[in-house]
Amino acid sequence: MSDDAQQFASDNYSGICPEAWAAMEEANRGHAAAYGEDAWTIRAADAFRSLFETPCQVFFAFNGTAANSLALASLCQSYHSVICAESAHVETDECGAPEFFSNGSKLLTVRTASGKLTPEAIRATATNRTDIHFPKPRVVTITQPTETGQVYGLAEIRAVSAVCRELGLSLHMDGARFANACASLGCSPAEMTWQAGIDVLCFGGTKNGMHAGEAVLFFDAGLAEDFGYRCKQAGQLASKMRFLAAPWVGMLETGAWLTHARNANACARGFAAAIAELPGVELMFPVEANGVFLRMPPERMEALRERGWRFYTFIGGGARFMFAWDADPARIAALVRDLRAGAHHRGA
Amino acid sequence: MSDDAQQFASDNYSGICPEAWAAMEEANRGHAAAYGEDAWTIRAADAFRSLFETPCQVFFAFNGTAANSLALASLCQSYHSVICAESAHVETDECGAPEFFSNGSKLLTVRTASGKLTPEAIRATATNRTDIHFPKPRVVTITQPTETGQVYGLAEIRAVSAVCRELGLSLHMDGARFANACASLGCSPAEMTWQAGIDVLCFGGTKNGMHAGEAVLFFDAGLAEDFGYRCKQAGQLASKMRFLAAPWVGMLETGAWLTHARNANACARGFAAAIAELPGVELMFPVEANGVFLRMPPERMEALRERGWRFYTFIGGGARFMFAWDADPARIAALVRDLRAGAHHRGA
Amino acid sequence: MSDDAQQFASDNYSGICPEAWAAMEEANRGHAAAYGEDAWTIRAADAFRSLFETPCQVFFAFNGTAANSLALASLCQSYHSVICAESAHVETDECGAPEFFSNGSKLLTVRTASGKLTPEAIRATATNRTDIHFPKPRVVTITQPTETGQVYGLAEIRAVSAVCRELGLSLHMDGARFANACASLGCSPAEMTWQAGIDVLCFGGTKNGMHAGEAVLFFDAGLAEDFGYRCKQAGQLASKMRFLAAPWVGMLETGAWLTHARNANACARGFAAAIAELPGVELMFPVEANGVFLRMPPERMEALRERGWRFYTFIGGGARFMFAWDADPARIAALVRDLRAGAHHRGA
Amino acid sequence: MSDDAQQFASDNYSGICPEAWAAMEEANRGHAAAYGEDAWTIRAADAFRSLFETPCQVFFAFNGTAANSLALASLCQSYHSVICAESAHVETDECGAPEFFSNGSKLLTVRTASGKLTPEAIRATATNRTDIHFPKPRVVTITQPTETGQVYGLAEIRAVSAVCRELGLSLHMDGARFANACASLGCSPAEMTWQAGIDVLCFGGTKNGMHAGEAVLFFDAGLAEDFGYRCKQAGQLASKMRFLAAPWVGMLETGAWLTHARNANACARGFAAAIAELPGVELMFPVEANGVFLRMPPERMEALRERGWRFYTFIGGGARFMFAWDADPARIAALVRDLRAGAHHRGA
Repeated sequence: MSDDAQQFASDNYSGICPEAWAAMEEANRGHAAAYGEDAWTIRAADAFRSLFETPCQVFFAFNGTAANSLALASLCQSYHSVICAESAHVETDECGAPEFFSNGSKLLTVRTASGKLTPEAIRATATNRTDIHFPKPRVVTITQPTETGQVYGLAEIRAVSAVCRELGLSLHMDGARFANACASLGCSPAEMTWQAGIDVLCFGGTKNGMHAGEAVLFFDAGLAEDFGYRCKQAGQLASKMRFLAAPWVGMLETGAWLTHARNANACARGFAAAIAELPGVELMFPVEANGVFLRMPPERMEALRERGWRFYTFIGGGARFMFAWDADPARIAALVRDLRAGAHHRGA
Repeated sequence: MSDDAQQFASDNYSGICPEAWAAMEEANRGHAAAYGEDAWTIRAADAFRSLFETPCQVFFAFNGTAANSLALASLCQSYHSVICAESAHVETDECGAPEFFSNGSKLLTVRTASGKLTPEAIRATATNRTDIHFPKPRVVTITQPTETGQVYGLAEIRAVSAVCRELGLSLHMDGARFANACASLGCSPAEMTWQAGIDVLCFGGTKNGMHAGEAVLFFDAGLAEDFGYRCKQAGQLASKMRFLAAPWVGMLETGAWLTHARNANACARGFAAAIAELPGVELMFPVEANGVFLRMPPERMEALRERGWRFYTFIGGGARFMFAWDADPARIAALVRDLRAGAHHRGA
Repeated sequence: MSDDAQQFASDNYSGICPEAWAAMEEANRGHAAAYGEDAWTIRAADAFRSLFETPCQVFFAFNGTAANSLALASLCQSYHSVICAESAHVETDECGAPEFFSNGSKLLTVRTASGKLTPEAIRATATNRTDIHFPKPRVVTITQPTETGQVYGLAEIRAVSAVCRELGLSLHMDGARFANACASLGCSPAEMTWQAGIDVLCFGGTKNGMHAGEAVLFFDAGLAEDFGYRCKQAGQLASKMRFLAAPWVGMLETGAWLTHARNANACARGFAAAIAELPGVELMFPVEANGVFLRMPPERMEALRERGWRFYTFIGGGARFMFAWDADPARIAALVRDLRAGAHHRGA
Repeated sequence: MSDDAQQFASDNYSGICPEAWAAMEEANRGHAAAYGEDAWTIRAADAFRSLFETPCQVFFAFNGTAANSLALASLCQSYHSVICAESAHVETDECGAPEFFSNGSKLLTVRTASGKLTPEAIRATATNRTDIHFPKPRVVTITQPTETGQVYGLAEIRAVSAVCRELGLSLHMDGARFANACASLGCSPAEMTWQAGIDVLCFGGTKNGMHAGEAVLFFDAGLAEDFGYRCKQAGQLASKMRFLAAPWVGMLETGAWLTHARNANACARGFAAAIAELPGVELMFPVEANGVFLRMPPERMEALRERGWRFYTFIGGGARFMFAWDADPARIAALVRDLRAGAHHRGA
């Protein structure tokens, strides 16, 4: 079954999409100025400004760990704290990167029923300790969509930003799968971000179809002051920047960023629908983006693995299936068949 | 004259070489495990071990700023210091990255006539202060070739490493243009590194023809302990690692790393020879790698710029011409002609 | 009621004990070498080695925040993590100091029924995540006594250290009230520390009767390498060190460290006994050191405050009464009277 | 000759002055709130505001390393740089503390003939590099008096602050011996600081006669935002703060800070005058504060040391004699006699 069997293990197992590839190919003609002084970088930044309908400040980082950590570090000092969901990637899977980039800012984790931050939870956490012995809350970060694939609605984001404004907190959005959230809500990038009160967005390109790369967008220019220096010092300024910028041009100018996300989401929904009635298999979370988490008996998981399927089980013991920009309906059908077979076999 | 006019401004203005490109293309088939768990990453690491004839530990970082800073940070603590040449890139052009990654390790800069560190200079610096009020020297870093294009000979490296061993200092090599140094000396990578006493090498891929990427090689496995965690926390673990690893496979397995470096060096030597007798133009440093630094009257520089040529003048006021992996003899000839014309014009 | 009313708010509201004061006075004669090169510093370090019956490495820091943070930072790197109880002071009341001193080491908090770390809890936390995306556990820190006044028995410490040894974790003891724990267990400092497997101890002087100062004791000399540099760089090397060292001489050579702790503990026990039968007032935790936590109705607390008594209510909503080295039985009797009066009044 | 022989080795070899001692003694009565919530801390801060004739923000740190490093860190980010004299204590004797507290801010050192920073030197350094590859200058720090005992005149400070304003740089004064500078110039603290354009001052108490302690004064309240959290996180918030604050009350309210500094300065001048005509002994720097640096033949130094005198020779190979708040004219006379004897002996 080879590589394809791991197609749903993670959306970063996917390759480079044709649009990003073509742009890299075009960028690879002749020489060009380094460190972002080239035409591709300007064009990519302009493409973001056009897409977001606002003259935002745009920076390019190599990956999400760095993009999120740099953004958070720019919004607070080491003695401040960052409020995030208990399951936020910055807390669970960045090996302490936010603490490292910020020289010690503490993450204050919040547990909610939905996995999303709520105004009430933010308020409770931000006002719980106001003495000098505890890091002062200064930033809230929300993951859109969440690690388990739920999407904050526009009203939810606006409610979160309202409490942030009231309490003097900056609001950051970790958009490692931002395109999937846009595709899910059917709203514009502007509506989901600055129009809803987001200060800084990290827009993920890797899972969206690029070889690497995240964009950091500051909607408040003041917050971006000297951010270029911050990126450089932290090892996030590419010398041949055009190869980090051109793929964005390919993604944004063609609309591929959204087309691919729509395909990924549709595949997730389709898979969820296909297994909805399957006995012994249960959806753990609403499917609102490109991930499907299933609860099933260990022997069912084992049976799938024996047939070569790869998936993670790190959250709540369930099986996670992620659908990438190039998720293939035929492979999904095969996976569904094997899941059904497992059900049948088990029932027999 | 368009883009080509800036062909000699910097060797990182160049694009991706065919060998690296082909490997990326091949890597872009189907899905593959992320974070270095893929076959390309293993193959690239093996290629390094084969090339260096030793079972070294290999890590991949996005760029030289990060590779060097991570390596240095792994060799010392914040209250230690790093001895480097006054003109070392880590001191002059990394925006404080070594200090940031190490949380404060001080760089102790040394000025020597040749621009290279010498055993005497290292000893003097390392033993100058031994009280608790000054950061304790723990690491020496040499740049091979230096920023001005000189190459440490094997005997020089061995002499440096001998004094490091004696004084309890680790020895790091910043090899942003390591291939050019190998091509220049005609020695094996092993001879220039671990056989000469180098503990950790940063081998630069970007200037050698890749889109991005540096390899960090630990010849002493003990020094590499938990280095993977360090990379991850610092935002230097690529999720789609294969696109950072595959180009290395392309470069190393085909020998392109050396072929390209030889071309770059030959172009530099050729250019230097061509202008050797030119009145009013003077070589500032011996040409041992792929850079040529010229001292000439400001009006000569201006004349070149008017004809569209781009070059930097940041070191000692001279004009720097860098020859990339794909440096084009025809363009060099054109540059020489324009330099001659300037001489003629001036003499007229 | 003046200042005395706040006598039980915190044991660091107390002043300098006579033994410490006398030593400072004696140290304040003539000139002496700075930065620990003086006779008092040597004598204080020797007093620790004598008291602990082992040639440990001794360093002096200004306060507990620094002592604990420096010790933890010396035991791990930024990409490592530190296992501590959920209620540990390093987690709840140091404003992110451990993260700052270590440049980002994450604290992994553990909740247990007793508030003490257990071998099981340590093992579960240390083995929960072993992938590169999560900071690798390297240190365990226990607070002796805990924030709520419980004391780890020798067998408990040995069990904790056994699992640490097995899992390759260093073991640190935050002994902000170490003397109280010794007085409580009636064991020797050696038995409670290195003989039980503690690697590094922070021994608190401030609450024990000094104006300021904590000692950091390394029982494994290898772990103390260059620790003096670390203290200096972090602003914890006193120039007139004798005034940080002499009080320790006063405390240790006279035995005051233990006498004072015994008095504090006895006062806590006495208070707890006096209110044991009081209706509406309930002990929240076993009284094993110098703190007593009471659960009582809000109006009872309010009544006490109206009579001028000061106490904190930060843990679990209970009222915390701390008994310092100079706790005064007459004042305790007055407090008990007022508590009884409140009970009476309420019952009326 | 005992301890007294080292009386001139360093002004921090001195003890606690009577005024500071008396205040500590008075503060050591009864209990008081911790962490600066006590009456002594308020009174000390008020004494500073009164002395400086302005409602400045006042913070207390344990020592100069921390005070200066915290102040500098509050004025810049890790990717910024700090301009200082080549001989500045923050550069030469803090073991990398400024880099540690700021997480990597680079110190840009300037060499001038006088050892003082000049507007020209600041401008040249601040404008030398303006590209993203070099840390952006944001702060200037001047040491008043300098390490070699020269005092910036008011006009000099104003000229420095003018160029700082123009270039957008903050201006910090390291006043480890601030009192000596005031005594030397005969001006008011206000004139030498905020009226001359200083943004933040570190006022040294240790060398002035305290057991420990430096005050950080922010003349621009905006710059002090959350500085208390910074101190706490960095281990510089004393729990029994009154013992760090009370000595300041003793020093400032009695005027002892100035009286002691005047004595120290007068002793230095007297010593310099006494040896002025001595053959073979030469003043290295103008004597404007409490330090005297002498150039003399090695055998003269050796002769002094044989007679028990202690002094440092770390700057330029000269012999440094420092005069503390309690410098004793009789001892100075003895030193002069021994210096003369050495001259005689040598001439014989």
